[in-house]
Amino acid sequence: MLDVVTKDEAVETVRRFSGTAPGTETVGIGDALHRVLSRDILSSEDVPPFDRSTVDGFAVRAADTFGAGDAIPSQLEVAGEILMGEKAGFTLKSGQCAKISTGGMLPGGADAAVPVEHTDCGDGLCLVYKAASPNENVTKKGDDIAAGEIALKKGTVLTPAGVGVLAALGVYEVPVFRKPVIAVISTGDEIADGAPEDGQIRDINTYLLSAAIRERGCEVYAYGAVRDDKDGIEKALVSCLERSDAVIISGGSSAGARDMTVDIIGGLGTAYFHGIAMKPGKPTIFGTVGNKPVFGLPGHPLAAYFVFRLIVTEYIRKILCLPADRPVKTGVLKENIPSNHGREEYICVKLSGNNEIEPVHTKSGIISVLGEADGFIKIARDTEGLPGGAAAKIYKL
Amino acid sequence: MLDVVTKDEAVETVRRFSGTAPGTETVGIGDALHRVLSRDILSSEDVPPFDRSTVDGFAVRAADTFGAGDAIPSQLEVAGEILMGEKAGFTLKSGQCAKISTGGMLPGGADAAVPVEHTDCGDGLCLVYKAASPNENVTKKGDDIAAGEIALKKGTVLTPAGVGVLAALGVYEVPVFRKPVIAVISTGDEIADGAPEDGQIRDINTYLLSAAIRERGCEVYAYGAVRDDKDGIEKALVSCLERSDAVIISGGSSAGARDMTVDIIGGLGTAYFHGIAMKPGKPTIFGTVGNKPVFGLPGHPLAAYFVFRLIVTEYIRKILCLPADRPVKTGVLKENIPSNHGREEYICVKLSGNNEIEPVHTKSGIISVLGEADGFIKIARDTEGLPGGAAAKIYKL
Repeated sequence: MLDVVTKDEAVETVRRFSGTAPGTETVGIGDALHRVLSRDILSSEDVPPFDRSTVDGFAVRAADTFGAGDAIPSQLEVAGEILMGEKAGFTLKSGQCAKISTGGMLPGGADAAVPVEHTDCGDGLCLVYKAASPNENVTKKGDDIAAGEIALKKGTVLTPAGVGVLAALGVYEVPVFRKPVIAVISTGDEIADGAPEDGQIRDINTYLLSAAIRERGCEVYAYGAVRDDKDGIEKALVSCLERSDAVIISGGSSAGARDMTVDIIGGLGTAYFHGIAMKPGKPTIFGTVGNKPVFGLPGHPLAAYFVFRLIVTEYIRKILCLPADRPVKTGVLKENIPSNHGREEYICVKLSGNNEIEPVHTKSGIISVLGEADGFIKIARDTEGLPGGAAAKIYKL
Repeated sequence: MLDVVTKDEAVETVRRFSGTAPGTETVGIGDALHRVLSRDILSSEDVPPFDRSTVDGFAVRAADTFGAGDAIPSQLEVAGEILMGEKAGFTLKSGQCAKISTGGMLPGGADAAVPVEHTDCGDGLCLVYKAASPNENVTKKGDDIAAGEIALKKGTVLTPAGVGVLAALGVYEVPVFRKPVIAVISTGDEIADGAPEDGQIRDINTYLLSAAIRERGCEVYAYGAVRDDKDGIEKALVSCLERSDAVIISGGSSAGARDMTVDIIGGLGTAYFHGIAMKPGKPTIFGTVGNKPVFGLPGHPLAAYFVFRLIVTEYIRKILCLPADRPVKTGVLKENIPSNHGREEYICVKLSGNNEIEPVHTKSGIISVLGEADGFIKIARDTEGLPGGAAAKIYKL
């Protein structure tokens, strides 16, 4: 008989036996969005690669403009014009300036730019009505990303901003982790094959978990639904292990069915725990077969989703080197939330107005509650709930 | 000469001239994640489709257990066992109960379930040590989703929970909007074609904006970079209009280049505004050609991204019937944030600890600042900044 573990022990066990990343590959920058970097990206060049003007106006030597004002402008000689995309063919000497556009490359000698609206120009001379301090209206070479620095860390999920950084550095072939393939088996004698008859229900978990797996940047192998039958589930598991990096078996709502799943995992490999002191999600099973993790999730879709979110994603985080889960905001509870001593509890909540947290009340919501919630809060194992007015951290669902 | 408009006027104009949705299509439920529903999904059945037990134990008539306790159990006759996925072949009479598993279908006559741990069973008799109230430990038919109700609204972006709702209802072919195709043209004489030489920079916006477009559920037609040349940009625009639903032209950092973009749009169709009183993002252009929106975005990547986020996404929201932009959290400013009177200003911020908001300080960050920020705050047009300690709403980048 396997132990029931705490949620922290469950996470620790899953991370310890999760194995390693599923290998790496190279994708074009156009396909890199939401992929995970498999190594640090070192900047091989300065961004920007030269000092640039941030205004349309004149490149100057700041010292030449000291003391300039509306009454007494500095008078500078126009040495020439900087064309976009080109290097100036001259260097500014003391008393000189050069016409420049936003983004233009400062000529040698220049260390600031003056916007055209503070100048008056004609006949090769330019009056500057406002003093510029050194580096004013200039982006210095390397200000954004300096050569040699780590621009993006291994384990970064590439957002549009991350893709922009890759483009800024000219990294058009991007080293990423191969997407882990996670298989899903839905079990239960009550799962209908087609339109449900009396006593049967539709298979929700295959679709819910497949979408959750894809949302986390993994690929899915959806085996489909099987009956609560030892040979059938074992055959499904063996087939999934051949095609995937990890397997989720959801269902087995009765105690007997869950014991059968533990036996099957234990027969093919090792089962580590059966039961987590958390709610929802208590009847969770974890084991490995040939170093591939196998998760037994509750059949109840809401509970299955929470276990996916809290336990299976720790496997994904581990092998893809992703950062730790963190709350997205802090709010204040609008009402008392009771909880059972002895297990970590998760409550789907909505944010109403100014960071006020309200639980999503539901008689027995199976799937609709997930759609209504803005996130969830945790109630620690050794408390009996949280009082209204208390601060609570909200996690993304 | 076109007017500079306020940000609200800009949004209103973009929404007014955005045209309609790019048509609809049907996708399999396995491909529906993150797609947008093109019509309401009406529930054609109750979920769950029958009253279900939420415990392993016995289905009972609640009235038969009234007054039951540890000292005086109710004594019930076991009428039979409910098999998972099947309808009971009998109806409970007064004084009877039936063995049932979690998820099993309640037999006729039963209106509650008693967990096995509160019972003692043998010889066709069952002692119940705890009274059950009507509906206790039961999920009623239709509790989760009732037949005839709108389960998911048109314009819903399908999350895993939404996909779960579709599965619960047996909607395996999903009506969604076709993904709009948005073209991107990057302009500027300074954009390098290959490794940048002196005065040249790499094309960031093609990749940054393409990723942002994909992240918003649209498809991209990336034209690439063109020089600041009227014929070249016009040719690019015409080519893009043939292949897309909307076009973004980014670049033209100098005033002259921007005027050229306005002229090109005005020559082929209608330009509505040139300049928005916002920062970053002032030099923004909007027009239509043959009812297709054309956006002129600043060349500066951070500014281009903000205009995409605040203006172009309003076009996407409009045609896909998506809900309005809303802040994700409220925080408290850690320090004073100055702003220029007369334009709406956007500041990239980080959340440090307990909802404290700190601006992302950057000398002139072009692209790296986007990666560091947790979101942005708005400073209204007619203020001169926000004081430390003030509450501010944070929007997602």
